[in-house]
Parts: sequence; structure tokens; C-alpha cells
Amino acid sequence: MIKVAVLGYGTVGSGVVEVIEKNKELINKRSAAELEVKYILDLRDFPGDPYESKLVHDVNIIMEDEEISIVCETMGGVGAAYKFTKMALESGKSVCTSNKELVAKYGPELLQIAKAHSCNYLFEASVGGGIPIIRPINTALTAEKIEAITGILNGTTNYILSKMEKEGADFEDVLKEAQEKGYAERNPEADVEGHDACRKIAILSSLMLGKTVDSEKIYTEGITKITAADFVYAKAMGRSIKLFGMSRNTENETWAMVSPFMISNENPLYMVSGVFNAICVRGNMLGDSMYYGRGAGKLPTASAVVGDVVDCARNQGKTLPCLWDAEEAVLSDIGEVERSFFIRVKADALDDVKAAFPGGEVIAVDGRAEDKGYVTVALKEKEFAAKCEALGDAVLNRIRMGE
Amino acid sequence: MIKVAVLGYGTVGSGVVEVIEKNKELINKRSAAELEVKYILDLRDFPGDPYESKLVHDVNIIMEDEEISIVCETMGGVGAAYKFTKMALESGKSVCTSNKELVAKYGPELLQIAKAHSCNYLFEASVGGGIPIIRPINTALTAEKIEAITGILNGTTNYILSKMEKEGADFEDVLKEAQEKGYAERNPEADVEGHDACRKIAILSSLMLGKTVDSEKIYTEGITKITAADFVYAKAMGRSIKLFGMSRNTENETWAMVSPFMISNENPLYMVSGVFNAICVRGNMLGDSMYYGRGAGKLPTASAVVGDVVDCARNQGKTLPCLWDAEEAVLSDIGEVERSFFIRVKADALDDVKAAFPGGEVIAVDGRAEDKGYVTVALKEKEFAAKCEALGDAVLNRIRMGE
Repeated sequence: MIKVAVLGYGTVGSGVVEVIEKNKELINKRSAAELEVKYILDLRDFPGDPYESKLVHDVNIIMEDEEISIVCETMGGVGAAYKFTKMALESGKSVCTSNKELVAKYGPELLQIAKAHSCNYLFEASVGGGIPIIRPINTALTAEKIEAITGILNGTTNYILSKMEKEGADFEDVLKEAQEKGYAERNPEADVEGHDACRKIAILSSLMLGKTVDSEKIYTEGITKITAADFVYAKAMGRSIKLFGMSRNTENETWAMVSPFMISNENPLYMVSGVFNAICVRGNMLGDSMYYGRGAGKLPTASAVVGDVVDCARNQGKTLPCLWDAEEAVLSDIGEVERSFFIRVKADALDDVKAAFPGGEVIAVDGRAEDKGYVTVALKEKEFAAKCEALGDAVLNRIRMGE
Repeated sequence: MIKVAVLGYGTVGSGVVEVIEKNKELINKRSAAELEVKYILDLRDFPGDPYESKLVHDVNIIMEDEEISIVCETMGGVGAAYKFTKMALESGKSVCTSNKELVAKYGPELLQIAKAHSCNYLFEASVGGGIPIIRPINTALTAEKIEAITGILNGTTNYILSKMEKEGADFEDVLKEAQEKGYAERNPEADVEGHDACRKIAILSSLMLGKTVDSEKIYTEGITKITAADFVYAKAMGRSIKLFGMSRNTENETWAMVSPFMISNENPLYMVSGVFNAICVRGNMLGDSMYYGRGAGKLPTASAVVGDVVDCARNQGKTLPCLWDAEEAVLSDIGEVERSFFIRVKADALDDVKAAFPGGEVIAVDGRAEDKGYVTVALKEKEFAAKCEALGDAVLNRIRMGE
């Protein structure tokens, strides 16, 4: 019998209890042991809840109970969650989490503590919800030098962009509707400004490099400036606009960023719409592989946490390999990266834009008098930014071109 | 130092040696040990090959060498490969393979022998080439009841179908071209008749069920009857035609089959074109997740074999869990499965078809006088087959409709 504690009885935490209950027979078979949720920690009471008897308010009950060997941290945040995770690992209890903020900020330290106490800190659910992506990187693509990771890592923004594309609607209107439907938070900043995607690409980039990528040093641009007009031009080019978390590790450059990209319909990420997430990983032997599925939601995320619980149960007393050192990765300057850009400009400024970015292509859309589209040839990010600055408010929007 | 032997120095075997050599530093770090290819077994000589000194012709040299702890079986077939795999496992040497035929036929027996000798029989490369799919099923989706697997499992047929679709060409012409380019074998039967996909879906279905699905009992239909005309109708419906390996495990039915399906552009497998493979897995908590990448080729396949080698190196003396019993799975009768079908019929037989399959939909394509398209409502496979039989040679082709 393996006893489990769940910290935080919110959406994901209650999902964890539900998944363990619903698929009990299979999960026990795969764990080669009987799993039981013994405690649920929450500050709130849940009168009438079927698991009410398991609720505790004092974390010490869990930490001091030697029967508990696995803890699911589904609280979120980097305060109490950090403290409790450390306590658990230091007592030799494995921790499985969906808390990307905590993993991005303290991942290597917590992995180190787990190793020192022969237990595990697993975080499959922290990126891509239920999509297996941490495990493929750590245990399947081990013969590969991973050179690129590109992901649609946030379901809320992908839902908003898909809906803008489909309906020709503007950002604010779709955001409002998404909030009403519960697909976006009342305070949507973490999603729409790209911070959530930033934490996730920080985690993936750290695993790619084996060193720590500081999420606060990742260039991050959200989707708030994307307009219905941008989608008109994207469509004219057979393209779509997606918010990517992206990182590269080649001989010449090592960087990570979050930004909207205008991508071609040949890109496997093109078809990822609505709340779905997908991550494309490029290895030097395999080339591109892609992992697609539900990147959020109660049961998908809980399923990934419970998958980690099964791994902990199978590997009691053994720390699974995760090559992620505390040493900070040195990233190259984003300004030096070369790419082409889409610019939407006031119609009367088109000649100035052509002069500033020679050799590019005008994107014509019938019946649009108010603005013009233009795609530059590849140039350095910093050169592009400087030239845009010089063009002033003639530039209505600019979006990076992707593959 | 962990010493490795490679059995068979063909495409995949030489790829294994190349991957280990090229990514040596990373692979050693991830294995927490230095890996070295000590022997390469092949009947042929390879004068001038950089690894000529490692070549041996006698398998006993490998089997009797206690230094060898991991063997890569990249010979193919079920004769010598079976014998050598058994010998290795019985000596406590782990075996990593790309040999789907052997895995489909003797998987559970070989897993059992590996377990009895505290070593591993790993076969990530046997399905989907370099795409991680066996490992996600065995170690990531462990909290899921897997209810459906649907895959584009054969790159040759997907290449042919994609090309037929794009160019409006007929099967025979595209096959010939694919053979000239080396994308199809001179004897293409195993691919185009669906046998290769059948072995792969047998392996995946066995892992889904934890029991053995006999590949010879899987209904298998290839792509040889698909014509340019069928693609004309598919296009008119916004659909594509893909060869699927498919299995289901719900309360009411458990079955596996290989067949072309006419699928909608909402299906995530729709965009999988050319030599790419992808596998969609539906779990009862996560819903659909998809795994996409290069399903064949020297380096992608070798990368998966070497990923298995790293897992063996990390788990010396320990057998990794793989729930696949020798007990044969009981499959339900395909004839009882309900679905709708596309039928292409001689133009003058349309009224007979409408009468035979009431409630369906005529698919109109401008300017086609010779045939008509029709999509039936859902009915049992066996009823559909019987009615088609009765319609005789008025039916030019019929293709299952997919999601």
C-alpha cells in the first residue's frame, strides 16, 4: 500500500483524487501497488465532499506521517508550495506537481534535494497539461541533441487567437467572451502577456540545455496587440498567427523567447487550434517530432500528475534521472537573431517601409484602403527594431515570421 | 564502461553506430556511463568501413562475452533474430530492437525472459520509428484507461496517398515513382497491403490491452484499390484518405483493424503528410493526445534504438515495467462495428445505391459523368458489406468514413 497526500484541493488537486479513484484498478496494476489518498491539505472546509474525512488543515500531519511516501503539490504559487515541497523532499517523500511557476523558479534546487534524499521531484503536468513532454525529453529523446523547441504552450491565448482568426473578431471582444466562458481568468495578464508560456519554455529550455534558463531573462511578448486586421493579412498569405514559446540551441546561438509568430500552413503547429497545446522538438538525428493534446483542464492536468505518482510508486528509493543543473545557461542576444518580419503600416507610408526594408514583399489584400502589409527579408532583430522606431507611428503592427 | 553489440549492420544497425558516435558526449552523460560499441555482427564483410575492426561473423563471440550488457537487434525477421534475442536475454543481456515483426510475434515471451533474467527487452523503434510512442504508453499515460489508438503507421503508404492527393495521380504511377526514389521497396506488398501497419497496431493494441493481439487476426486492407477518382470526392468533402492502424477498447467493443479511412480536416491526423507518421491516443481522462514525427529512416529509427540503450544503461539489473501478457486478447467482431461509408458508384446505379442505403448523402462533383459519390448513414460493417455485394459491379469503390 502506497499512501499519497494531495496539497491543495482546487481544480487540479480534486482532479488528482478523481483520477486515482476512477482508474484505480489500472493505476494500481501499473504501480504494482495499491495507491490510496490518505490526506488532502486545504485551508478551506468542504462539507459534504465525499473525501471530507481526508481533509486536514495542518501540513505537519502529512510531513510527520511516515506512511506518506508521495505528495502531490497542486497548490500553485511559490510561497507555501515551495516550503511544503522542500519539507516533503527532505523527509524522503516524492513530490509530483503541476506548479510551473515553482518548477521554473526552483526546479534545480528541488531536484537536488530529491536526489539527496533518494526520492523524486516530478513535474510532467507543469508543461503542456496532460501531454507527455517532460518524460519524452528526459527518457525517450536521450540519443538526441535537441536543437530547437517550439510550442503552443498556453491554451487561453491559443483559444483567443483561433477565435479571432475564425470570426475576424478583435482581441478585446474575444477575451471578454473567453472570460465569460471560463476559458480566461478575470485577471488574464499571466496568459495574454505571455508569462505563463514564458515559465513553460523556461522549463523546457532548461531541460534541453541541462542548465537553468532564468524565466525573467526570456524576451516575452504577448498577444494583446494582435488585431483582426493582422489576421486578414495572415490569411492572404495562407498563414496563421500563434503565440510560441521557442528556444534554440545550435552551434551559433542559444536563446529562448515568447512571441506571436505568423506561421505557414506547412508547419505542424498550424493546425493546433482552440485550447489545444502542442510542442515541436527538433533533434539532430530524429528531426522534428511533435506532441499534441490538452494543455490544461482539470482531468488532463491531473492525469499527468497521477502518471508521475505511478512513476514514483514504481521507483521507490530511487531518483529518476533529470539533467538540469543550477548553473545558469548563457543565452545569446535576441537582437542578433536574424529573421523576416511582417509589418502592417498606414497605407501612405508603404513607400517609406519599402525604402527602409528593401527587397521585401508587399502583401496585397483587395479592398483594404486603410493599411498595407509588407514582409521584410531576413535581418537582425535589433536592426528591425531600430528601423521600426524610425518609422514611428506609420507602423501599425509588426509580427515575427515563422516557418 | 557499458559495452554494446549491434546485430545486423544494415540501414538501422549502421545508424545505431552512427548515433552513438555522433552524440557520444550527451549519450554518455545521460547514461551516467561511457557507452562503447564493441561488436557488430553481420554475415557480410565491410572492407574499409571505419568500424571494420568491430565486425564479427559469429554470434557466440557476443553471447559469451560477459562485458556485453546491451545488444541492439537490427537484423529484422523472425528467424535468427528470434534465436539471438532469446540467447542474449537468457544471458542477462538487455536487447533493444527496431524489429516490429519479432515484437508483434514474440513480444510477451521475450518480455517474460527479460524479466526472469533481470534485464530488458525494449522496442521503442518498432512503432513510429523515432517517434516516442511505446514509452509514453508505458510510462507517461499510466493514469489513463486508453480507449482508442489511431495511427498513420506506415510512411510509404502515407507518402503514396499524399502524392496521389496532391497530384491527382493514380496509385500505380505514384508507387512506381516511390520505388525509383527509394521510398518504396521493390516488393512493396508489406507496405501497400497494410501488413507493416498491421504489425504496428498489433503491438500498440497489445500494450493498450495488456494482453496479446494476434496480428494475423487483425482485419487488414491496404491502399491498392484507392484511385485518383476517390481523392476527387474526398476533396469535394474537405476530406483526405489515410491508411489507419486503429484499435478501440471501450465498454462495448474491443477491436483492431488496418484500413484506409476518409477523414475530415478537423482530425489532427489530417495534416500528417508525406513520409511522416503520427499516432493519436485517446485516454478516458486526457482525451486525445498525438505523437508525430519521422516514422522510418536510418537515423530516426536508430535514435529510438539508442534511446532504449540509454534506458538499459540507466537500469542495469532492473526490468522496466511493460504490461503485456501472453494471454490472447478477445477481439469483438469487426462486422458488428457501426460506421458510415463512402461509396463511389457507376453514375447509372446511383438510385439503386440510394435505395440500398436510405438517408445518406449524394456527393456532387461538377463535370463527373462516369461516377457518383455517396455517403451512407452509420450501419454495421457486415450489413454494409452484404448490401455492397448485392449491388455487384455497380460499386466502383468503398472507403470507411473516419472522424
